[in-house]
Amino acid sequence: MKFSVITIGREYCSGGLDIARKVAANLGAPMYDKELITLAAKESGLSEQAIAAGEKRPSGSLLYNLYTMGSDLPLSDQVFVVQSQIIRQLADKGPCVIVGRCGDYVLRGRADVLRVFLHAPLEFRRRRALAEGAVPAEADERTANALLEKEDRRRAAYYNFYSEFRWGEAGHYDLCLNTALGDEVCADLILRAAQG
Amino acid sequence: MKFSVITIGREYCSGGLDIARKVAANLGAPMYDKELITLAAKESGLSEQAIAAGEKRPSGSLLYNLYTMGSDLPLSDQVFVVQSQIIRQLADKGPCVIVGRCGDYVLRGRADVLRVFLHAPLEFRRRRALAEGAVPAEADERTANALLEKEDRRRAAYYNFYSEFRWGEAGHYDLCLNTALGDEVCADLILRAAQG
Repeated sequence: MKFSVITIGREYCSGGLDIARKVAANLGAPMYDKELITLAAKESGLSEQAIAAGEKRPSGSLLYNLYTMGSDLPLSDQVFVVQSQIIRQLADKGPCVIVGRCGDYVLRGRADVLRVFLHAPLEFRRRRALAEGAVPAEADERTANALLEKEDRRRAAYYNFYSEFRWGEAGHYDLCLNTALGDEVCADLILRAAQG
Repeated sequence: MKFSVITIGREYCSGGLDIARKVAANLGAPMYDKELITLAAKESGLSEQAIAAGEKRPSGSLLYNLYTMGSDLPLSDQVFVVQSQIIRQLADKGPCVIVGRCGDYVLRGRADVLRVFLHAPLEFRRRRALAEGAVPAEADERTANALLEKEDRRRAAYYNFYSEFRWGEAGHYDLCLNTALGDEVCADLILRAAQG
């Protein structure tokens, strides 16, 4: 296989995590997402709660500021540095699928990394969000869209802040897919591309 | 096949035309690119030269202004309208591959259209441009890059002007590919995606 490490960025509720699981299962390789937080916490001595707070707040808030007291680097930057080290270690260890966390940027310059971005029309994601309980069942269309777009903005802000790139711009990825094509089709296409 | 019409947008010298040809050959379907100009010319009564001039100059220039004298719509808009009609007629006729000309936007809302965007790193495209004679053999790296980027800007400006979208933003396409993956791989992936 030409690309043994697959990074997957994704819009909120595009089904990226399900597709990443299918790809990882097919490869017999581990997938890392929230697990990264746990690993990072163990590695760095920062508590899981602190890391979760740092990820959610790239800019100041009372809770955030309480965590960062007495540190040279802002907490979110500490978290990013630690997670980046861990992503590089994981990629060195062997084939794997890394979801989110600017994985494509952290591993830039490596020839064995396939960089994937998954997205879908808002309507498609709203249906998926409702089915998965990611938005309240009683939310009307406008409220649900606002929730999806807010989470997308958070992801874009995180990516655009820590990378030199622009989240969701095709040129920074090897393969971008509309997940409305279907989870199976997307997983197939990623696996085909990874073969080289 | 789920998608019988494939539209392909592409960065300059990304190899998009070669890949489009492979896809069309595999499908046994026609591919339309510059042919569209000829068709549009015959259909509209505008001369081929006038259409070529209109496409190259979405904004004013002496030559452009000479062509547009005595017409209600700017020439570039007339060309766009005529080409859009023709693209819709071609898509209605049967399976085909349409390269450039905002095909994805013109055919928006149709469920049988797979929207593809092809791109590649500048270094890769520079090598391809030199091999294909698209930039002069004696051009240094900086000059060659400038030529490639200028043509990309022209394509982006055309697309962004006539569509509501942003050229090369993953969310507006079903499939975006880095052609450095290889022409064969890209053609395979497009055909696989088109099957649905």
